[in-house]
Amino acid sequence: MMTIRLGLVGVGKIAHDQHIPTIAASPDFELVATASRHGSVEGTPSYSSIEEMLDGPETIDAITLCQPPHVRYDAARLAIASGKHVFLEKPPGMTLGEVAALAEQAETAGVSLFASWHSRYGAAIDDTRAWLAGTTIHSVKAIWKEDVRVWHPGQEWLWEAGALGVFDPGINALSVLTAILPRRFFLTDATLEFPENRAAPIAADLTYVDTAGVPVAAEFDFRQPGPHTWEVHAETAAGTMLLAKGGNELWIDGVLKTTAPEAEYRGLYDQFARLIAAGKSDADTTPLAHVTDAFLRGVRVPVEPFHY
Amino acid sequence: MMTIRLGLVGVGKIAHDQHIPTIAASPDFELVATASRHGSVEGTPSYSSIEEMLDGPETIDAITLCQPPHVRYDAARLAIASGKHVFLEKPPGMTLGEVAALAEQAETAGVSLFASWHSRYGAAIDDTRAWLAGTTIHSVKAIWKEDVRVWHPGQEWLWEAGALGVFDPGINALSVLTAILPRRFFLTDATLEFPENRAAPIAADLTYVDTAGVPVAAEFDFRQPGPHTWEVHAETAAGTMLLAKGGNELWIDGVLKTTAPEAEYRGLYDQFARLIAAGKSDADTTPLAHVTDAFLRGVRVPVEPFHY
Repeated sequence: MMTIRLGLVGVGKIAHDQHIPTIAASPDFELVATASRHGSVEGTPSYSSIEEMLDGPETIDAITLCQPPHVRYDAARLAIASGKHVFLEKPPGMTLGEVAALAEQAETAGVSLFASWHSRYGAAIDDTRAWLAGTTIHSVKAIWKEDVRVWHPGQEWLWEAGALGVFDPGINALSVLTAILPRRFFLTDATLEFPENRAAPIAADLTYVDTAGVPVAAEFDFRQPGPHTWEVHAETAAGTMLLAKGGNELWIDGVLKTTAPEAEYRGLYDQFARLIAAGKSDADTTPLAHVTDAFLRGVRVPVEPFHY
Repeated sequence: MMTIRLGLVGVGKIAHDQHIPTIAASPDFELVATASRHGSVEGTPSYSSIEEMLDGPETIDAITLCQPPHVRYDAARLAIASGKHVFLEKPPGMTLGEVAALAEQAETAGVSLFASWHSRYGAAIDDTRAWLAGTTIHSVKAIWKEDVRVWHPGQEWLWEAGALGVFDPGINALSVLTAILPRRFFLTDATLEFPENRAAPIAADLTYVDTAGVPVAAEFDFRQPGPHTWEVHAETAAGTMLLAKGGNELWIDGVLKTTAPEAEYRGLYDQFARLIAAGKSDADTTPLAHVTDAFLRGVRVPVEPFHY
C-alpha cells in the first residue's frame, strides 16, 4: 500500500501529545505539512492556515483536523471539497447537523470521512465487548471524573455557550458504552451542573436504560482533584466487571484479564488507513446524539463559579 | 389490498381533531379498538391501556400512538414486540436515543415504524420543493408563531424539563424546511427564551446555514395572540416565495400558485399504508436532531413567567 501523505491542522496539545508521535510511528502515514496559527512540527513544512497548506507545493492525500470543534466544520468542508480524506478529532462537530452535512459531502466527493472516538481503541475494548456479550448484565455505571485544570488548562472555549464542558471527556465514556454494550440504551433522566459564571456544564448525572430494561448510569465531573477516574463498572451474572483506565484494562472480580500498553491513536490511524483503502467512511454520531439528548432532557442546576 | 385493522392509543385532542376522522375516511384503515385513560370513540371497543387492548379479542395489525411523548416509548416498544406496525405522532420520542432504539427493534421484528411529520404532507409541500430546486436561493426564513393557550390549552407536560416547549410547533417548521430545501443546513447560533417559572422554552431564534452557504433562519414564539403564523419565506433568483398556512399554500411574488384543502393526516395515513404494503419503515429523525442541536448550542435567556 502507498504511504498516505497527511496534512495536520491544529498543532496544539492533542497534536503534540498524540497525533504527531503516532503519525511518526505509523507505517501508513507520512506527515507532509501542518497548518496552525501558532504551532509547527520541526522539519515539516508549516502553514498558518489550511487554505495556505492546500495552496502549498506538497501533495496531500488526507487531512487530520484537531483544532477546537467550533472552527472545524469550515476546514473539513474545504478539505473534502479539495478531494482529501478527513480525520476529525472528537467531538466530530458542534452539532449533529454539521456532521450529517459533512458525511453527505464526503459520500458525494468519494472521500473517506472518519469521525474518530479514541476511547473505542483502548486495549481492552474488544475483550470487554466480547465478555459482556457472553453474560447477563444486571447494571452498568460509567464514571468519568478528572481535573479540568490538568486536562484542559486555560481552555476557555470549553466553557462557551454551545461547548460541551464536562461532556468533552464524558463523550469518551459514551463512545465506550456504545461500543461495549450489547444493546442500545437511551436517556431517561439527566441533571447537569452549570457553574454560575459558565455556559457549559461542569458535571452531569445521567440515567439510561437499555432496550432490555437494564439500567445504565453515567457520572461525569470536571472537579476531581488528583488522579482521574475513567471507568465502567458492570454487575453481571458472571461477576463484577471493571473496565479501567479509559478502556485499557479489563478486570473481572478483581482479577486483571486484559491489558496492553495504551495505543488508542495508533488504533485510530490504523482504522483511518483501512477506511481509505476500502473507500469507506466511519462517521458514527451516536455518542454526540447522546450528548445532545442530555442537553435537551437535562435539568440544569446552578453551582459555584469556576475559574482556572 | 386488505384493510389494515388499527388500534388507536391516546384519545385526546389530536386524536379527535385529526386521527379519528381521517381513519374513518381512509380506504386503507379500519379503527377496531382504542386505548386511553379517559377518552373513547363511540361504537369502537375501548380499553384503558394498550396492554388491555392487546389482550382484547380484536385482531389488530397496526397501532397509532398519539399520547404525549413521555409515555410513548413503552407503548411503542410493546406494540412492536407484539408484531404491530406503529405510527408515532410527532415528535417521535423524548430523545434521539429512544427513536434509534425503536427503529432497530422494528427492523428486527419486521414491522413498519412510521415517525410521522404531518406538516410534510401540506398541500403545497411537493410543489414548493420542486420550485426551490429550480432556482437559486438567496435566503430562507421560517416563522412559526402561535398562541399556546389556544393550541395547547392547559397542557402542563409541554413545560416540564425535557419537554419541547415552543419546539413542539417549531419542529413542524423544521420538518418542513428539511423537506423543501435542496441542501442540508445546520445551526450556527441559537437563542432560547425560557419563562422564569418553566423548564422549557417559550420562544426561539435560530440561525442556520446550508451547505452552499445560504442563510436559513427560524423564529418560533408561543406568545402570539390572535391568528397563528406558520410560514416559510424565501428570497430567490426567481422571486419571493411564501409557503403559507403551515405548508398548504405556495405564493410566488404575491400570486397564489398552489393550494388545496388541508389534508395532512390523510397524507400521513396514505404513507403509513404504503409503508406497511412495502414492508418498510420511515423514521427520519432529522427534525428532532435539529431540536436537540438547538438545546445543545442555544444561549438561554430568562423571560417573564408564563401561566395558562
